[in-house]
Amino acid sequence: MPELSIPSVQGIRLASVPAKIKDWERNDLLLIELAEGASVAATFTQNTFCAAPVIVAKEHIGKGAIRALLVNAGNANAATGLKGLVDTRATCDAVAEALQIHAEQVLPFSTGVIGEHLPVQKLLDAIPAAARQLNAVGWQQAAEAIMTTDTRPKTASRTVQINGELITVVGIAKGSGMIQPNMATMLAYVATDAAVEQSLLDQMVREAVNVSFNRISVDGDTSTNDACVLVATGVRGELLKSDDDTAYRDLLEAMIQIHIELAQAVVKDGEGATKFVTVQVDAAQSSEEALKVAFEVGNSPLVKTALYASDPNWGRLVMAIGNAIEGNLDTDKVNIFLDKVQVVSAGGRAQEYREESGEQVFSQPEFLIRIELGRGQCSEHIWTCDFSHEYVTINAEYRT
Amino acid sequence: MPELSIPSVQGIRLASVPAKIKDWERNDLLLIELAEGASVAATFTQNTFCAAPVIVAKEHIGKGAIRALLVNAGNANAATGLKGLVDTRATCDAVAEALQIHAEQVLPFSTGVIGEHLPVQKLLDAIPAAARQLNAVGWQQAAEAIMTTDTRPKTASRTVQINGELITVVGIAKGSGMIQPNMATMLAYVATDAAVEQSLLDQMVREAVNVSFNRISVDGDTSTNDACVLVATGVRGELLKSDDDTAYRDLLEAMIQIHIELAQAVVKDGEGATKFVTVQVDAAQSSEEALKVAFEVGNSPLVKTALYASDPNWGRLVMAIGNAIEGNLDTDKVNIFLDKVQVVSAGGRAQEYREESGEQVFSQPEFLIRIELGRGQCSEHIWTCDFSHEYVTINAEYRT
Repeated sequence: MPELSIPSVQGIRLASVPAKIKDWERNDLLLIELAEGASVAATFTQNTFCAAPVIVAKEHIGKGAIRALLVNAGNANAATGLKGLVDTRATCDAVAEALQIHAEQVLPFSTGVIGEHLPVQKLLDAIPAAARQLNAVGWQQAAEAIMTTDTRPKTASRTVQINGELITVVGIAKGSGMIQPNMATMLAYVATDAAVEQSLLDQMVREAVNVSFNRISVDGDTSTNDACVLVATGVRGELLKSDDDTAYRDLLEAMIQIHIELAQAVVKDGEGATKFVTVQVDAAQSSEEALKVAFEVGNSPLVKTALYASDPNWGRLVMAIGNAIEGNLDTDKVNIFLDKVQVVSAGGRAQEYREESGEQVFSQPEFLIRIELGRGQCSEHIWTCDFSHEYVTINAEYRT
Repeated sequence: MPELSIPSVQGIRLASVPAKIKDWERNDLLLIELAEGASVAATFTQNTFCAAPVIVAKEHIGKGAIRALLVNAGNANAATGLKGLVDTRATCDAVAEALQIHAEQVLPFSTGVIGEHLPVQKLLDAIPAAARQLNAVGWQQAAEAIMTTDTRPKTASRTVQINGELITVVGIAKGSGMIQPNMATMLAYVATDAAVEQSLLDQMVREAVNVSFNRISVDGDTSTNDACVLVATGVRGELLKSDDDTAYRDLLEAMIQIHIELAQAVVKDGEGATKFVTVQVDAAQSSEEALKVAFEVGNSPLVKTALYASDPNWGRLVMAIGNAIEGNLDTDKVNIFLDKVQVVSAGGRAQEYREESGEQVFSQPEFLIRIELGRGQCSEHIWTCDFSHEYVTINAEYRT
């Protein structure tokens, strides 16, 4: 995607620079400056072994008035103890000095290897150059600078008419790359020039993440560094204050589209992935039940190797369903469809099902597994990928 | 192991015969006859999509006075609806007729492909021959007859002096084989000639399974057909009635040893497994917490590919710990040891740790990962295996 296709977001300036955090020739440090008055909302990993920058970012965001984001690739600064926190704070101090703001107005993020100390001096040396190079253009380079084992940068953008104003939304994400395995780390940054009240922005990021990044799985492992950040610079349009507002709904719709596009891009670039699969669960008793079944199917190694082999081995689907459902399951009410092909009817093989039809669906690069539980009215879906030889190679042999 | 090394259990007769359930030349049907008065206790899969024989076996065992077990390999009779139940009951009827007992005194078991109807006529044809061939000798052939994708039969036996009587305990198990992937099915049968009151035998099977089969994982997927059955024929010794009884404790100890030996054999024969790893979690707040952490570590695809690669990638261990612990985790109190090598101290890399030491441990075919959480007094351990290219090959390519 050429740079010109990604619009600028008024109130945002970016710079990507090489800090040589690893022995590589590329930009690996991203600085994002936010205009005064911008609102910022974020969600962070639920992993209780969370990284030093996650701890500091949570602390800072609670105090408001965020003016800068600093992101480094190549080192996660996780499981680094007290020194990890000291290092992270030092980078915030450096950004504060370069931009003439307070350290608490900086949110730090790291992605890369767990358990190695941040080469903090390299970051401190590179920050002043980044501050000098800040520019409204640069989202594509930003998406590239935060990559670790990703095979391609992930960007998404929309312009939407809201209250007569043309509002821009741009997002970048990284995650699920190759070669360097101890991450599965996901970082996403989405920015708009719209004006959104803080509490409403907090609600917006939760709503958008819930239907996007919280619906994907590559290997079922949650990283120590995941974060999704939503910035509203407030430069354009009236301040949005209520979720009843049509303008808010329109912006949320664009936000959700951006988040889903980025989340799907992470799965499609999943380690070793050759298939992109939607698992939809209908007629569940609750959303929680539907999601539990969908993730049990989408994370089962037996299901994922069958996806890889284009083998419509539906016995593994019923196995996973039976593991997810608690209490009694009336298996006679369970139906399963592979795209439009019904493979299971009333808990057993559908009479009209032919193996070739199932194989045809599973041979596609993208398809749908739809499960009807016959237990209620709730539906949910997730996106997942397959489990390939390449996955084992990436995660087993990267040091050799 | 030569047949002669497996003792007979008084009150048990066995026969293994070829029923040609699949297109293969081997025994695939096992009939076990129990002496009148034998006690039987069992645990079954928690999978709610459980197989027809599991439903029928649960029904029959509730009525007591079990006299026969019938086990077939090659077909799981799972996700087979009403016809699956009718087929299973027909096999019980055939055993009842051959042995002159009631159908409700027969426990049926199946293992193999999910979702295909049982070739019931083949079983009905083979059952009379099996009944004619019943013999006190034959545990080794029995262990072979119930194999599906296993690479070797799994047996274990002990003789113990209890109340002055020499009591025999023999067990067989199958599970986690190769080539035919939709199973991960585990079946285990343990028999003793001791006399144990029904309620005490129920307690014994729960206690023994809890520290053995409930502590293993190959791929985290629970099958639709798992079962573990404990038979006490009551031929030798006094009736054991109380768990305070020293004789009961001695028998339980032997039982637990047999169960653990069989459970470990299943993991060692796990699909594609090249490593056998004990994950021990100490200083947890509760047993549940310790087990949750142990299984999160033992089931993580990222950890399992690192085991395969002999790569002591401890960042993946802390990632899995952080995913398992809910609420707050004081990471400064977490220590991790690979056998005796301390790799993590106070939540970060141990100062004296050298990568070569970790690699040396991980290069062994068997080793221990020990995690100290620093949260309480509880310990638990599980046994797991690695995730290899062979696992993907077995589970992806068996049809090609």
